[in-house]
Amino acid sequence: MCSLRLGKIIFSHMEQRIKESFARQGLMQTFGAELTEVVSGSCEIVCEFKAGLSQQHGFFHGGVITSIADSACGYAALTLMPEGAEVVTVEFKINFLKVANTSRLRVVGKVLQSGRSLTVCEGCVYSEDGTLCAKMTATLMAISP
Amino acid sequence: MCSLRLGKIIFSHMEQRIKESFARQGLMQTFGAELTEVVSGSCEIVCEFKAGLSQQHGFFHGGVITSIADSACGYAALTLMPEGAEVVTVEFKINFLKVANTSRLRVVGKVLQSGRSLTVCEGCVYSEDGTLCAKMTATLMAISP
Amino acid sequence: MCSLRLGKIIFSHMEQRIKESFARQGLMQTFGAELTEVVSGSCEIVCEFKAGLSQQHGFFHGGVITSIADSACGYAALTLMPEGAEVVTVEFKINFLKVANTSRLRVVGKVLQSGRSLTVCEGCVYSEDGTLCAKMTATLMAISP
Amino acid sequence: MCSLRLGKIIFSHMEQRIKESFARQGLMQTFGAELTEVVSGSCEIVCEFKAGLSQQHGFFHGGVITSIADSACGYAALTLMPEGAEVVTVEFKINFLKVANTSRLRVVGKVLQSGRSLTVCEGCVYSEDGTLCAKMTATLMAISP
Repeated sequence: MCSLRLGKIIFSHMEQRIKESFARQGLMQTFGAELTEVVSGSCEIVCEFKAGLSQQHGFFHGGVITSIADSACGYAALTLMPEGAEVVTVEFKINFLKVANTSRLRVVGKVLQSGRSLTVCEGCVYSEDGTLCAKMTATLMAISP
Repeated sequence: MCSLRLGKIIFSHMEQRIKESFARQGLMQTFGAELTEVVSGSCEIVCEFKAGLSQQHGFFHGGVITSIADSACGYAALTLMPEGAEVVTVEFKINFLKVANTSRLRVVGKVLQSGRSLTVCEGCVYSEDGTLCAKMTATLMAISP
Repeated sequence: MCSLRLGKIIFSHMEQRIKESFARQGLMQTFGAELTEVVSGSCEIVCEFKAGLSQQHGFFHGGVITSIADSACGYAALTLMPEGAEVVTVEFKINFLKVANTSRLRVVGKVLQSGRSLTVCEGCVYSEDGTLCAKMTATLMAISP
Repeated sequence: MCSLRLGKIIFSHMEQRIKESFARQGLMQTFGAELTEVVSGSCEIVCEFKAGLSQQHGFFHGGVITSIADSACGYAALTLMPEGAEVVTVEFKINFLKVANTSRLRVVGKVLQSGRSLTVCEGCVYSEDGTLCAKMTATLMAISP
């Protein structure tokens, strides 16, 4: 019990670090994206549509979908990294499954495999009605600052 | 000669369509990105750094790098598609090779393989000093509107 | 009920076609791989280790893992394609999560998204003790012969 | 000159290690693949067609194409890693550009970016007439045994 409590305190510290880091991502501010959940091994970000986030047909640009999926995967990975580590994206792949014709995107990034230096995450991007619009697989690396 | 001239006229029409399409991409406006070259099978986009495009350490967010590479690959693919076709991104993969600690990104998207329905493009993202920061491979599909 | 029965007959025809197609894959014969399940939207293949399938340290070569995952994803996609269609792999990405230090691999390919011409599948590769060794995301295309 | 000569001696040692490692890859023996060139930052492998390497239509199976590209990228990466390091494949993505209707495949793996722990390589797979059949991007990691 005691160790669980300690775990929670430590995680709450991690959550705080992630919230502060997210707030420093100028791009997420530009998008108006919100970090809505951070738990151990997972992270959720939501983003409302606005004209400045569109592609040529007026839907969410694939780059917006990808950017928030990248951030969600990165922070999901960070939740399982050692205190003080920073996370960088090594690479990712994303498949666009449906046109993101929606007023709001929700991305859930989850850790698939957590290693000493590398973490593999998956990011699922949903439209407002719950349709899976895109799926990302990302490789992230822990770096000591 | 005559057919070359016709080719140029047709291509100039395509270039015009691509410039108009790019201007309708709200995200590229938000970024302040510019379409600097469109030739047959290739497209170049540049983007100046500003705070609203950063990740947590003050460099270009991977999502910005990816977004402009996606647009450059998409328009490169479109240059070789039939008149009237639209292009959608099926999927892409991107490797981040160097931290994009630069005041300006330049992306060149090029067609690697052009098929009837599918086109494969590569996007190279360079920092101001010419360092290759990221490399994308993208699969795009032609759709008839 | 009647249509369900018809569905089963049609699927049983598809299953037969897939088994015959698998038997024609010389590589799967070389590997000694077996097609152990074909259901609508999913396909399972197993493969026993032998020295001829190794990498330099005596474990399964990544190419074997990838080959059976590719076949499993391809046939999973084919189960949802129209009668008479053939399937080709457009591209895939695979992450290797654990060294495949096992005497037997099991791959499950599943359809994530099925479209008119393109299908996206995921392939999970497990070692004998159920550890997830690798994860593939594949894009497949239906072609009319 | 002296240091160049030393470089050559060191590289010749690396070449020897890679040839021995390749010879231990049971899968490459099964394929009958040959390591035809190892130079600093690059590696070439060729493979003749035989029935045991086919997919269902009698051409090279995508898994064979991928396996030899994986080996070529891995050894290309290893040429630039420190003495004594081993290389493991973290992940790769491959696009199949043309049906490999050829009697012989040639793969060239090249280092795109070499870092302390991670290396990014590209693998180009050619048919006998020089057509680019497939293109791989791979991330590899150096490990100390």
